[in-house]
Amino acid sequence: MLVALAGGVGAARFLRGLVRATEPSDIFVVVNTGDDEIFHGLHVCPDLDSVTYTLAGKSNPETGWGLANETFRVMEALDRFGAPTWFRLGDADLATHLYRTQRLHAGATLSEVTTEITNAFEIEARLVPMTNDRVSTMIQTAGNTSPMPMQEWFVLHQTRPSVTAVSFEGASLARPAPGVLDALETADSIIVCPSNPVISIGPILALPGVRDALVERRDRVIGISPIIAGAPVKGPADKLMGPLGIEVSCVGVARAYADFCSTLVVDVADAALVGAVEAQGVRCVVAHTLMTDEGASEALARLVLKEANVP
Amino acid sequence: MLVALAGGVGAARFLRGLVRATEPSDIFVVVNTGDDEIFHGLHVCPDLDSVTYTLAGKSNPETGWGLANETFRVMEALDRFGAPTWFRLGDADLATHLYRTQRLHAGATLSEVTTEITNAFEIEARLVPMTNDRVSTMIQTAGNTSPMPMQEWFVLHQTRPSVTAVSFEGASLARPAPGVLDALETADSIIVCPSNPVISIGPILALPGVRDALVERRDRVIGISPIIAGAPVKGPADKLMGPLGIEVSCVGVARAYADFCSTLVVDVADAALVGAVEAQGVRCVVAHTLMTDEGASEALARLVLKEANVP
Repeated sequence: MLVALAGGVGAARFLRGLVRATEPSDIFVVVNTGDDEIFHGLHVCPDLDSVTYTLAGKSNPETGWGLANETFRVMEALDRFGAPTWFRLGDADLATHLYRTQRLHAGATLSEVTTEITNAFEIEARLVPMTNDRVSTMIQTAGNTSPMPMQEWFVLHQTRPSVTAVSFEGASLARPAPGVLDALETADSIIVCPSNPVISIGPILALPGVRDALVERRDRVIGISPIIAGAPVKGPADKLMGPLGIEVSCVGVARAYADFCSTLVVDVADAALVGAVEAQGVRCVVAHTLMTDEGASEALARLVLKEANVP
Repeated sequence: MLVALAGGVGAARFLRGLVRATEPSDIFVVVNTGDDEIFHGLHVCPDLDSVTYTLAGKSNPETGWGLANETFRVMEALDRFGAPTWFRLGDADLATHLYRTQRLHAGATLSEVTTEITNAFEIEARLVPMTNDRVSTMIQTAGNTSPMPMQEWFVLHQTRPSVTAVSFEGASLARPAPGVLDALETADSIIVCPSNPVISIGPILALPGVRDALVERRDRVIGISPIIAGAPVKGPADKLMGPLGIEVSCVGVARAYADFCSTLVVDVADAALVGAVEAQGVRCVVAHTLMTDEGASEALARLVLKEANVP
């Protein structure tokens, strides 16, 4: 079995290649839920849905999140009520949130609902939320006395307020979802997807037992740097890593992951940094990591499997 | 002040005329909520919404309920999850339910949310749910041991199972919404809209204090028969009245309302029944009651106001 630690778009693009490169039912994906938020009373899981829609071949190819050919009739109608609609949820996407919310209210766990949703989308890989408990990634920004939820900083404020600290509210008391620690203990290989190290991988690492389990299996852990040539491919990683003292480069990623990750795949654009990565005690593999299409995703996935000695 | 007791489409069509015939802000509409239902976790109020959308000039002109130019993207997407979608909610309509549900969860009463929604639709008449408590109109059908909610009988089963009894679960413990009893006590005139006597007006009458208040003001109460020439204009009134021993005619309506209603407006098609209506002790007025367009609604409203001696 393969375990993948995943955030949103970057992970989704990698995973769409991984399910082509190996048997999908052998893949166990642990997905960040720190960005989950309640909008209009509905439980929205941005990263779970990005991965689900992408693996189903139904994601919006331009944004990488949300569904293709989406309409926004409900949001347009909600504007009438003066409800805050800065987080634009598409109509078909809303159906997922309605279904999830209703099932959660009926007493199902997020794990159970996630299985129902991924089954409905006919996804063979197993997707699991990192926890069934509520963990909220909170962003402390300069000049604000209290931190704001990640989506507020990212979507409403467009990452403009400069970040001074990030915390994962509820993480210390949360339990990893059923099966997560077992999967980490028994996996043939553990892949850290090319996701934001601070707010995608960070919340997963903050759950009790997860980092220790990874350290224990360090020689089986392989990561892919989400930073290419000193910048994230997509998303706000640079605005989060810098202020938290993580160099915005594949070397910074290697340093942040070094205690639990034995191999890091970096982009060809960073070939000159191999030495600096290996100086962190992490084996460095150079590859084309820019996943411009499914073929590129699959090629990267095949390389990762080979480097991880997965047959 | 005028008070109107209202169900769905028939009442909505009458009220669109009433707001043209008199000052809208003088009208206090008490709306049936016995058909309210939770669908997909959302609190749906079919009668409140039919009246709201119609008064806003935004209802679907063909059905009389729902919004004009509606799309059903969310329902189509929900089908994927195997959730029951026999009650088709339009996308723009869903925004109303999302807003309402969210506000109710936040602790607002249905009265408060209804005011917010009617304000958002710029409606000047005051719309009030009959109660802020949960009352469910239940239909007992032949061959079933337990009754089913009204929408299930009406929409899912298309009124096919024959009715043996109707009950209003929760009505005896429910309180009329704030302002309802006061309005009935002080109204210059009380209009019973042309709505289903059993399941639209019946639940309102079943609330503690309402029928007594009407009896007390009997000489101020004027009704419009929803039955024309022995059949309802729209809806399943015939399938409910007959089995409950109410003759499916304006005479049957007069008999059912006689204790609290002093005047009944019947259609020109029923001119021959004036004597039979008046034999119930109810003054009978003959008029064109088929509200084929807004002009017809307004003419009927003007006649009702005149007969009610409202200047």
